[in-house]
Amino acid sequence: MRSHRVMLGGVPKKVDHHVRRREIADALWRVVAAKGFAAVSLRQVAAEAGVSMGLVQHYFDSRERMLLFALDSVSERAREHIAVELAGHPEPAPRAVVRALLTQVLPLDEQRRREGHALFAFLAEGGRGGVVGERMRADMLRFTDALAEQVRRGAATPDPERAAVLLLAVADGLTAHVLGGHLDPADALTALDDQLNHVFGAIG
Amino acid sequence: MRSHRVMLGGVPKKVDHHVRRREIADALWRVVAAKGFAAVSLRQVAAEAGVSMGLVQHYFDSRERMLLFALDSVSERAREHIAVELAGHPEPAPRAVVRALLTQVLPLDEQRRREGHALFAFLAEGGRGGVVGERMRADMLRFTDALAEQVRRGAATPDPERAAVLLLAVADGLTAHVLGGHLDPADALTALDDQLNHVFGAIG
Repeated sequence: MRSHRVMLGGVPKKVDHHVRRREIADALWRVVAAKGFAAVSLRQVAAEAGVSMGLVQHYFDSRERMLLFALDSVSERAREHIAVELAGHPEPAPRAVVRALLTQVLPLDEQRRREGHALFAFLAEGGRGGVVGERMRADMLRFTDALAEQVRRGAATPDPERAAVLLLAVADGLTAHVLGGHLDPADALTALDDQLNHVFGAIG
Repeated sequence: MRSHRVMLGGVPKKVDHHVRRREIADALWRVVAAKGFAAVSLRQVAAEAGVSMGLVQHYFDSRERMLLFALDSVSERAREHIAVELAGHPEPAPRAVVRALLTQVLPLDEQRRREGHALFAFLAEGGRGGVVGERMRADMLRFTDALAEQVRRGAATPDPERAAVLLLAVADGLTAHVLGGHLDPADALTALDDQLNHVFGAIG
């Protein structure tokens, strides 16, 4: 959060708004992780963020818009992490890109643990329709397409889409097992690398 | 349920008790799927099962015992399904055993969809300690061991445990995507077969 503020330090007012919105989004994810999606309301999130409800309403005119922003902020943060991880590699190998994408899914720190809990809260609640369900599905399909594109570029597999579906399943399944407490995060990373070796070849 | 009753028809009284307990366990899973683990109480489950709270108390003297029985009933039912699937193969190939084990995880029918929701409800609620958490973890580890044993017997991989961790991650990850509504159950099965081809060889 702080580094982001520094990064974009040239336009303080605008950045502060964005930072503030992100702080509210973070509070929203903590509510989801603790109590599920059903518990998300402007009031609950304001309380969790330690701000007034009026301020939350100033940024988001509905619960739905707040949820959509929170989903987008997860993607945005993931993109930032990936950019940092691939920095200095002007043309990173497809395998490195896929690894950067999928390690953003694994619960390797508190932030990603919370995001994992949120995903499973969503699935536990039925993965039903609604704007959030549609956005999540669209995000997943876009993510799978991005993986498939890299597999197409870097691997000799006959069906990149199927390999991509499997790769994302591996990442989400490993996430489930880490969150369930019977798989060590380091072992999850090793298992992910095994799958990458399988798709891209042990050297790739 | 009915076929089980017929199967063990020789001892009606005892079987009826077991059937009754299973019906209560089924009601428990419906409560979990709809409202999460936190909503499980003897009262809620009695209401969902359409029986008196006294009857539930007759079978289970605590919420915890009821939860543990419900977990065991999932494993028991999975074993029955696997036995049916492998019937007539006195010595089934390791690949067939692994496939039978893992297709019991995929949400290919309403029952397994509910079990999938329940798993994710558990993870969403933090996969924390407690008797249920410990039992779930123990079940997962036992399941992984069973997979590893078959991989050891049937595949040439240097590390059967790691292959088993990946196989279970694939099954649970595919389950997440089917429940999330962005993966077709048939495509999940195809992806699982891809992974089995990888581990056991395309012919295996």
